[in-house]
Amino acid sequence: MDTIQSDNYPIYFNNSIDELVSFVKKGAYSKFFILTDENTGVHCLPIVKSKLDELGDYDLIEINAGEESKDIDFCIGVWKMLIDFGADRKSLMINLGGGVVTDLGGFAASTYKRGIDFVHVPTTLLSQVDASVGGKTGIDIDSIKNIIGTFTQPKAVFIEYNFLKTLPPRQILSGLAEMLKHGLIADAAYWNELKSSDLKKPTVQLVYRSVEIKNVITIEDPKEKGIRKALNFGHTIGHAVETNSLINDKDPLSHGEAIAIGMICESYLAYKKTGLSAEELSEITHVFSDLYPRYTIAESSFDNLFAIMQKDKKNQDNKINCTLLTKIGQCNIDNICTEAELRESLMYYINL
Amino acid sequence: MDTIQSDNYPIYFNNSIDELVSFVKKGAYSKFFILTDENTGVHCLPIVKSKLDELGDYDLIEINAGEESKDIDFCIGVWKMLIDFGADRKSLMINLGGGVVTDLGGFAASTYKRGIDFVHVPTTLLSQVDASVGGKTGIDIDSIKNIIGTFTQPKAVFIEYNFLKTLPPRQILSGLAEMLKHGLIADAAYWNELKSSDLKKPTVQLVYRSVEIKNVITIEDPKEKGIRKALNFGHTIGHAVETNSLINDKDPLSHGEAIAIGMICESYLAYKKTGLSAEELSEITHVFSDLYPRYTIAESSFDNLFAIMQKDKKNQDNKINCTLLTKIGQCNIDNICTEAELRESLMYYINL
Ligand SMILES: NC(=O)c1ccc[n+]([C@@H]2O[C@H](COP(=O)([O-])OP(=O)(O)OC[C@H]3O[C@@H](n4cnc5c(N)ncnc54)[C@H](O)[C@@H]3O)[C@@H](O)[C@H]2O)c1
Ligand SMILES: NC(=O)c1ccc[n+]([C@@H]2O[C@H](COP(=O)([O-])OP(=O)(O)OC[C@H]3O[C@@H](n4cnc5c(N)ncnc54)[C@H](O)[C@@H]3O)[C@@H](O)[C@H]2O)c1
Ligand SMILES: [Zn+2]
Ligand SMILES: [Zn+2]
Repeated sequence: MDTIQSDNYPIYFNNSIDELVSFVKKGAYSKFFILTDENTGVHCLPIVKSKLDELGDYDLIEINAGEESKDIDFCIGVWKMLIDFGADRKSLMINLGGGVVTDLGGFAASTYKRGIDFVHVPTTLLSQVDASVGGKTGIDIDSIKNIIGTFTQPKAVFIEYNFLKTLPPRQILSGLAEMLKHGLIADAAYWNELKSSDLKKPTVQLVYRSVEIKNVITIEDPKEKGIRKALNFGHTIGHAVETNSLINDKDPLSHGEAIAIGMICESYLAYKKTGLSAEELSEITHVFSDLYPRYTIAESSFDNLFAIMQKDKKNQDNKINCTLLTKIGQCNIDNICTEAELRESLMYYINL
Repeated sequence: MDTIQSDNYPIYFNNSIDELVSFVKKGAYSKFFILTDENTGVHCLPIVKSKLDELGDYDLIEINAGEESKDIDFCIGVWKMLIDFGADRKSLMINLGGGVVTDLGGFAASTYKRGIDFVHVPTTLLSQVDASVGGKTGIDIDSIKNIIGTFTQPKAVFIEYNFLKTLPPRQILSGLAEMLKHGLIADAAYWNELKSSDLKKPTVQLVYRSVEIKNVITIEDPKEKGIRKALNFGHTIGHAVETNSLINDKDPLSHGEAIAIGMICESYLAYKKTGLSAEELSEITHVFSDLYPRYTIAESSFDNLFAIMQKDKKNQDNKINCTLLTKIGQCNIDNICTEAELRESLMYYINL
């Protein structure tokens, strides 16, 4: 597996922690900071620490685990710690964690003193195949996900496959949803390979291929004017389900679990609107239904879900937009969907 | 006066409000928002409103007047209003006000949904000759000025000289400090012209020349890696005096008043360190002392001032950095100044 070249920065796959150490060494940074959450502080930091300690002084910033930490209040907390620790413009932020840590850390760094360098060391499957690649940073306000953010590329990404060993099975499933998405929108052969693999534990080669797909798409369209919207497949409905679950459920859905539901619903829309065949719809539905637990969506929550979709960042002129498959491995962006269609697609999921 | 071309965006000087109207018309925005403060809401908004009303629906966001409104809490307030008003990615933010409005509005817009378009209509002399040009946005946390921000260019700047008519004399003086700075760092002839003008009411030609100077410098070095640091002349000490005054004074110094003090002190440092002649130091000191009221700096506040300078964004490796004149019209960036030198320069001001 070669190092992947992204938009002016490398994505390392081999000896990634050693690469991180030499990156920091070469960078001549005045200081560096490691952002972790409670879990990566326990499972991943020791491994990094043992190698970074030789590089001298650095400070640790730890946030609570979970999406709640992506709130603006935590972001202010990170900014204040950077101030207190005396971070200057030549400081480096190392984001060691899942998508919450990389999104929040990326945003905090990209705005601190109008931007300091940052790198990602993604430790969940989701952040390895998705969140750490493509330069989107983001935080939430009032549970509206990623409502505030920047497009800022990290200086490098270091993917250490071994970090996935301590990841709970549910988190593997969460990242897997994005990998399946990559196959569905861009590479039918990869989708077929995934289907016939043991997806409880995706191989490093499968992870690598997902990063390649995401990287190619985001390089072509970094600011999401066109083709990058392909990556939103499953996300219009999925984001609404996720947000609703975060507000209402004791044990909320993970991002990937929600997106898996979104992909089922949006495949139904594709069957209705963009030519996905009945067989393909059935195949997709089965793959996701076999992998992911059933989730109960009450019809009484449709109003809420629709209201959330109307606030979606991706909308223009108040119209709700979906990326829909034309067949497995290909998709079409910017399909306007009516309220009736969206409700019907949720009914399809409910009635499975 | 021709329209000035900046880094991919125009700075209008003639019929600017008409230009604004036709810019909004052409832009095919889904919505637009006007950010004002209490004063520009009264003095400037009606003029803009009467011409914009034909363009249909828009929403107003008003903040309190003054630097306190640049705090992160107000920024969150602006973000939440954009959410409530349903601002989407094709929305436009029009910042109608002084540097507080343009800095805050620019930051809020540059991060809302990872960035929406914004334009500046600067209404103070300071914002016309300085804050609205060059693409820096910023907000404050815990009274640390501009600690958070982005480098994002507006889509256009509309300078309407007539807005200055309602501006209090103290605010004219505040902007004037930056104009004098432009002469001192880059154009001795302009400095001489300013010296011999009625500076209670600078002409539109003088305003125009200042914008030209700032624009050329920031185009050359948008991210302040080198030559843009010239614009920091007076600001290392000036910012510290300003921050200290904001915390402690009932009627705090304006930005320009503080920077005027900073330029006197840093001219003294230039006389000591970078070859500014005694005659030039005396000339600069006199021009500023004649224009700006005396301000009492107690020796007991030096520790505070120095502590603030140590937190300055511009520092690297904990060393305090000044831009110093080599002669009138020329300067040198990145001069490290010791605590003793900085204290001595403050003593120079105190003893005037
Ligand atoms: N920027 C982007 O392009 C992008 C793309 C997709 C998702 N995201 C964002 O990513 C976030 C979700 O990311 P996530 O699923 O990684 O969530 P996460 O960061 O919350 O991590 C999930 C859980 O796994 C734990 N964890 C992390 N690494 C571990 C390890 N090696 N061993 C054991 N436990 C570990 C975490 O502490 C957390 O409890 C969302 O906020 C989403 O918006 C961003
Ligand atoms: N982004 C940059 O490059 C840059 C450069 C310099 C300064 N700044 C920032 O600019 C801010 C200072 O700007 P400022 O001096 O314009 O302050 P300001 O925006 O607070 O305006 C000063 C006062 O004038 C009032 N006012 C504005 N226009 C008026 C008008 N036409 N008639 C009557 N009253 C009017 C305002 O309500 C306010 O009370 C600081 O926060 C500073 O950090 C930014
Ligand atoms: Zn996703
Ligand atoms: Zn200034």
